[in-house]
Amino acid sequence: MENGGRKRWGFQGNEELDKAASITIRGVLNKVMSNLNPQDHRPVIPLGHGDPSAFSCFRTTPVAEDAIVDALRSRKFNSYAPAVGILPARRAIAEHLSHDLPYKLSPDDIFLTIGCSQAIELIIKVLARPGANILLPRPGYPFYESHAAANHLEFRHFDLLPEKGWEVDLEGVKALADENTVAMVIINPGNPCGNIFTHEHLKKVAETARMLGILVISDEVYAHLAFGGNPYVSMGAFGSITPVITLGSISKRWIVPGWRLGWLVTNDPNGILHKSGVVESIVSSLNISSDPATFIQGAVPQIIEKTTDDFYLKIISILRETAGTCFDGIEDIPCLTCPHKARRIHVCDDIEDDIDFCMKLSKEESVIVFPGFAVGMKNWLRITFAIEPPSLEDGLGRIKAFYQRHAKKQ
Amino acid sequence: MENGGRKRWGFQGNEELDKAASITIRGVLNKVMSNLNPQDHRPVIPLGHGDPSAFSCFRTTPVAEDAIVDALRSRKFNSYAPAVGILPARRAIAEHLSHDLPYKLSPDDIFLTIGCSQAIELIIKVLARPGANILLPRPGYPFYESHAAANHLEFRHFDLLPEKGWEVDLEGVKALADENTVAMVIINPGNPCGNIFTHEHLKKVAETARMLGILVISDEVYAHLAFGGNPYVSMGAFGSITPVITLGSISKRWIVPGWRLGWLVTNDPNGILHKSGVVESIVSSLNISSDPATFIQGAVPQIIEKTTDDFYLKIISILRETAGTCFDGIEDIPCLTCPHKARRIHVCDDIEDDIDFCMKLSKEESVIVFPGFAVGMKNWLRITFAIEPPSLEDGLGRIKAFYQRHAKKQ
Repeated sequence: MENGGRKRWGFQGNEELDKAASITIRGVLNKVMSNLNPQDHRPVIPLGHGDPSAFSCFRTTPVAEDAIVDALRSRKFNSYAPAVGILPARRAIAEHLSHDLPYKLSPDDIFLTIGCSQAIELIIKVLARPGANILLPRPGYPFYESHAAANHLEFRHFDLLPEKGWEVDLEGVKALADENTVAMVIINPGNPCGNIFTHEHLKKVAETARMLGILVISDEVYAHLAFGGNPYVSMGAFGSITPVITLGSISKRWIVPGWRLGWLVTNDPNGILHKSGVVESIVSSLNISSDPATFIQGAVPQIIEKTTDDFYLKIISILRETAGTCFDGIEDIPCLTCPHKARRIHVCDDIEDDIDFCMKLSKEESVIVFPGFAVGMKNWLRITFAIEPPSLEDGLGRIKAFYQRHAKKQ
Repeated sequence: MENGGRKRWGFQGNEELDKAASITIRGVLNKVMSNLNPQDHRPVIPLGHGDPSAFSCFRTTPVAEDAIVDALRSRKFNSYAPAVGILPARRAIAEHLSHDLPYKLSPDDIFLTIGCSQAIELIIKVLARPGANILLPRPGYPFYESHAAANHLEFRHFDLLPEKGWEVDLEGVKALADENTVAMVIINPGNPCGNIFTHEHLKKVAETARMLGILVISDEVYAHLAFGGNPYVSMGAFGSITPVITLGSISKRWIVPGWRLGWLVTNDPNGILHKSGVVESIVSSLNISSDPATFIQGAVPQIIEKTTDDFYLKIISILRETAGTCFDGIEDIPCLTCPHKARRIHVCDDIEDDIDFCMKLSKEESVIVFPGFAVGMKNWLRITFAIEPPSLEDGLGRIKAFYQRHAKKQ
């Protein structure tokens, strides 16, 4: 590529970045959706990603919308915010999260981020150093792998055990860790499996981490969205055993993923993260990062204070119903099995693999499901049930028809 | 730091990140503000940073607020957005920016970012590769240096020439560039100098960049805020000479820096940035980055369409007035000189240097100004005049009193 016969252009794309971003939920979904058949005029059934906000039954509470309008109209929140976030929002989040903990968080423990995704990016950046490694769950959420790769932080996978309700394989964690391991990540409630870790198991995770001298990063973006047997427990409850950083956001519980307001929280009553310089580096990174919109930060206290239990209970109730519908529907589709009530499914029949299944299902039935390879589980599927019940039933019906057609071909 | 006698903690802070973030506008301002005297009950006069949104005379147009409320209340924008931004916003920005160009931008040229700051972070990440370097202006905006350092991209400074109205020292640029140079950055209208580059000078910048085979990154966050002799010209107008990436946002023209909505734009009618993989890497990076809030994206078309010239003209008129007040006030303070109408000032008297000046002024007069060292100009000051006129006059009066007191000490 010459520029007028003088000299080649000195710039080029960044292959490392391209590689780090090669497997993302968005990227894989785009690929599956690119295979939709434009001649199929049925509505597309989106079972591929966890964003039910488009469905009226999952509409956020008007309280949250009003809080945004009030903050905006007050004209107090048009300015740049402090790098760590505005104090009233941090104070409200500290109080809110302290309900789940045996001690009280301070606003200084709370760092506001642009959704949970910036919180992930932030902690990976802070922990990355040459030679270090981090332990990530399989199955998991590929954003961790992407940012570890982009920041040259080696990642190693430990397994979640389906036969134990997707608990962490703690022996596997011990075997993987070495003197360069900085942290392990858990996602609770689980993504993609939807499992809830017990109090007892989380304590064991903390004790293992302490023995290994590593930090626990607990992704709690789905906090409180629990409707099975186990009650939700925050990993922060074990911050006195080993330092814990929890990540969260308003995206899932309030069903407003597009509002981009999340947090990173240090659960560390012993102050180890301060002494080790981790807190200082979190602030450094935030000093040169973008912030959540200030008026959205300004709305946080009102969103948290004014949302009533009615709203939370209504959402949980719909999710419990759709989870049941999904499980029952899958039982009725012989090519799929659904072990341990996880929303992951074995593929079989004349379909080559999970990607082939998703691509063909997209083309033939306008149903989007997510191929498991991208969350670490080849030949499994991730099926989201957080959509309105009639659409879910329609989608499951189409998957069954898809199965029957392909089964006949054998 | 032992964890119960077992093993040292394996994690630590990130010194590289701390170093990269050591000089930021926010960090330096916080330091200067930490020296305020709590006994001084006069209002603090903030001449240190460009965010006039707190002053009623700089209130954004109600049209912009209404656009946000309409987008929010429509409930169409609570979901995750595509990584590059939603199409209606990209289309509106493409049309808006095309008015300044001899060709039409396509929505595909527009990438939405979280303010201009994420656009800076994004392009630095994309261009960084081992051994590469980027040319940055001195004086400039330290966010570029921070992100270059954080991404291991070497930076080299070319001078802006005060005697030529802060034009780029193009001979200096040629002398600095080598085969590993990927890009040069200009800021137009200038930050911190407020100068506007002429059409003729920008053309020379483009020709120089083409000769060197490098990209021009033009930071146009202050676009159209021009009230001196030179009309504002977008560097994008020269995209057919050399590929140009312009950066912008609604922060400055609409005076809503806290809304965090910006853009990165490829001005490249010859498609060189596609061929070189730069566009692909921009998309890769956005695929693993956080996005501007979706409903703020959703408000963009209405903000752009409905804002009338009245609003723009009113703001320009106030800025012209306060710029004059600032210039006249400084002329009346002998320790300061203000060459070429730039808002940068020499320090003298019993004050050690620019930092000492700012720290003492903060303590003694509750006036915040910004030390020049942090924008590359030791012993200069950056004084913002974008505040309400009475406060500006108050602030200048206090600086004069500060001078008189210190002059007597000699």
